[in-house]
Amino acid sequence: MAFQKPPGTQDLLPGTVDQWQYVEGIARDVCRRFNFREIRTPIFESTELFQRGVGETTDIVEKEMYTFTDRGNRSITLRPEGTAGAVRAYVENKLYGEPDLTKLYYIGPMFRYERQQAGRYRQFHQFGVEALGSVDPALDAEVIALGYTFYTEAGLKGVRVEINSVGTPQVRAVFRQRLLEFLEPKRSQLCKDCQSRMDRNPLRVLDCKTDQAHFEGAPSILDSLDDECREHFDKVRGYLTGMGIPFEVNPRLVRGLDYYTHTAFEFKAEGIGAIDTIGGGGRYNGLVADIGGPDQPGVGLGLGLERTLLILEHQEANPEGLAALDVYVVALGEAAEREIPSLLFQLRLAGLSAERDYLGRKMKAQMKSADRFKARFTAILGDDELAAGEIALKDMSTGEQRMVPLAALANEIVSRR
Amino acid sequence: MAFQKPPGTQDLLPGTVDQWQYVEGIARDVCRRFNFREIRTPIFESTELFQRGVGETTDIVEKEMYTFTDRGNRSITLRPEGTAGAVRAYVENKLYGEPDLTKLYYIGPMFRYERQQAGRYRQFHQFGVEALGSVDPALDAEVIALGYTFYTEAGLKGVRVEINSVGTPQVRAVFRQRLLEFLEPKRSQLCKDCQSRMDRNPLRVLDCKTDQAHFEGAPSILDSLDDECREHFDKVRGYLTGMGIPFEVNPRLVRGLDYYTHTAFEFKAEGIGAIDTIGGGGRYNGLVADIGGPDQPGVGLGLGLERTLLILEHQEANPEGLAALDVYVVALGEAAEREIPSLLFQLRLAGLSAERDYLGRKMKAQMKSADRFKARFTAILGDDELAAGEIALKDMSTGEQRMVPLAALANEIVSRR
Repeated sequence: MAFQKPPGTQDLLPGTVDQWQYVEGIARDVCRRFNFREIRTPIFESTELFQRGVGETTDIVEKEMYTFTDRGNRSITLRPEGTAGAVRAYVENKLYGEPDLTKLYYIGPMFRYERQQAGRYRQFHQFGVEALGSVDPALDAEVIALGYTFYTEAGLKGVRVEINSVGTPQVRAVFRQRLLEFLEPKRSQLCKDCQSRMDRNPLRVLDCKTDQAHFEGAPSILDSLDDECREHFDKVRGYLTGMGIPFEVNPRLVRGLDYYTHTAFEFKAEGIGAIDTIGGGGRYNGLVADIGGPDQPGVGLGLGLERTLLILEHQEANPEGLAALDVYVVALGEAAEREIPSLLFQLRLAGLSAERDYLGRKMKAQMKSADRFKARFTAILGDDELAAGEIALKDMSTGEQRMVPLAALANEIVSRR
Repeated sequence: MAFQKPPGTQDLLPGTVDQWQYVEGIARDVCRRFNFREIRTPIFESTELFQRGVGETTDIVEKEMYTFTDRGNRSITLRPEGTAGAVRAYVENKLYGEPDLTKLYYIGPMFRYERQQAGRYRQFHQFGVEALGSVDPALDAEVIALGYTFYTEAGLKGVRVEINSVGTPQVRAVFRQRLLEFLEPKRSQLCKDCQSRMDRNPLRVLDCKTDQAHFEGAPSILDSLDDECREHFDKVRGYLTGMGIPFEVNPRLVRGLDYYTHTAFEFKAEGIGAIDTIGGGGRYNGLVADIGGPDQPGVGLGLGLERTLLILEHQEANPEGLAALDVYVVALGEAAEREIPSLLFQLRLAGLSAERDYLGRKMKAQMKSADRFKARFTAILGDDELAAGEIALKDMSTGEQRMVPLAALANEIVSRR
């Protein structure tokens, strides 16, 4: 019998992985410059952490978690997102006790049991940042700038930033009332999802794609903001303008998670057909206390790497695949054949990428193999040359071939590659 | 309530992660030079894959797997090791159909529900390579050389290589008989584990740490090798000698997994007290067919990154922690404060790592923060300087301070850092 990968998972093969490495390298370099540092939390956590940290009534917790009982009878869950684990680690390891605020990033696999569809995976990968310990609106702007810089340096074209203020819980309670007064007379005309959202989380109703026609004249949360919220939002916008980051205010933007306060934002880009949300985040001043920590504020973003790579592919902005090989070594004769492993090892110790044949193929087939690896040089060792301490070095771009002392081979390639 | 990470898992915090990044960077660079390319397979696979690929009667499969039923009623298991998934991907994606052999590496989390003890984790991390498609003994030597190069470049001292030939299944059947004839008269004097191993896997008896006194005069598998096995083993040793890699032959070396053929090897290093096995591998010519693929040979190695880092720490050979910050920016005055976000953004766009204060701290506290980040420069912006388009740049190593045009700040730091 032949085995298959589980549904909703992927094998990232050489070639594809090169593109992941490229995009992850940009994420890491952007984080270095913005002084965010990597944290790695476990792949699974106690189920209760996500119930508390993501929210009992969210789709993620209700329908999509990979939850199971381990051999010690604990309920554990494969992490469905990155913020809960990072905030748990911040609290458990008392990072809030350090004199500077805590700026973290993570890159890794997340798990949600979603209905299978194109571009959706049950194991997917997120890049996220969390800045904990400051209420400064400059930090909200910085997190947005970090995401924008990541996308543009990865090569995405036409990235748009939308921002909103979702206020404080007090502000939202007042706005929820106003909104329900507006929606209630229209309830029967709205879609089933919206009717259910009206009872559970009315702010998300305005996000509905099918019911937009009914929402003309709906109240805006921005009109409900108190002075503190308004000032915070004004500053975030001022800083973004100062940085030259283009953005639009979208007063109907509400993120799927309940814990946001003040700033909420999303990144959008032209995907396959429609404009897709490709990432987002916001400020979450209550979350740390909610999961049992001190009352420390936070702001973060999360984005899906599959989505980023899919859009790069769609925009035909894919990074280069296979890196060229420095040298492919060919042996002609038995004595030469015996010498190849140590010669190859010397080249590799000198920092060069080096390859050979392991299938007993003829010279011509070996040269084809060298071409497939995009070898910059081919080094050909015959028994006579070996006896004379020399090797033929061929420059694959010019076709030029010359004899080189065996002991000087690595240096010769390093200086000419 | 406060949440905790699950038992047997770790939070890798900034500082510690830097050491992981360093060691992983070496693994990736060594793989580049040896022309192995990265593959990423799912975190979980069908349970049956591991039952077949690791072995039904191994401790891993019998006692240690994180196995559960998903929402689609499939039995899935968090991967306990990396080879089964990599070989499954090789078969499912038909990589064996490509003209060159397949040289893969992986780095990532693995999961085993083990008894808790120091240095053992239930989520641990492996670096491994698999070379599929060739029976050439030069490839066995190359995989051993790759592991040896990784350890030495990571900074481990006194790494020892032990190798053995475990022959083919036919050779092992003959040897098993001879060994049992030797062991049977001593059965009652052996430890309980050994008595049980005599019935299940007698070759592993010779590996026992407590019963060595009884094994004098035991038959050696090397005396049972047939011509093909002996020639393969001779060549591997010859290549290792040619490469200058020190090794010892240990005829009692048997790896925990049953699928090895011909070469088996282990890396050892002085750990905390005793000599520890820190990694190993071997040739597995039957495994690909066992899990439903074509009859393709393979050779690989796997090693634990926790163990590597623990021994580096014990040898006090830890890599440097925190990388220095390029510049810390301080604002004096309200206008300057408003300008900081865009100034910081410009520095970061120029490739510099740049930081500031977000906690409203006084000048002196900000300079202390700059010291904690090991800032190379501090840039101090006052309202008057801002109006004049200038900023004070202080070299933190010499204490020298000079005025620089605001627009030239990034260039100035880039050229002097």
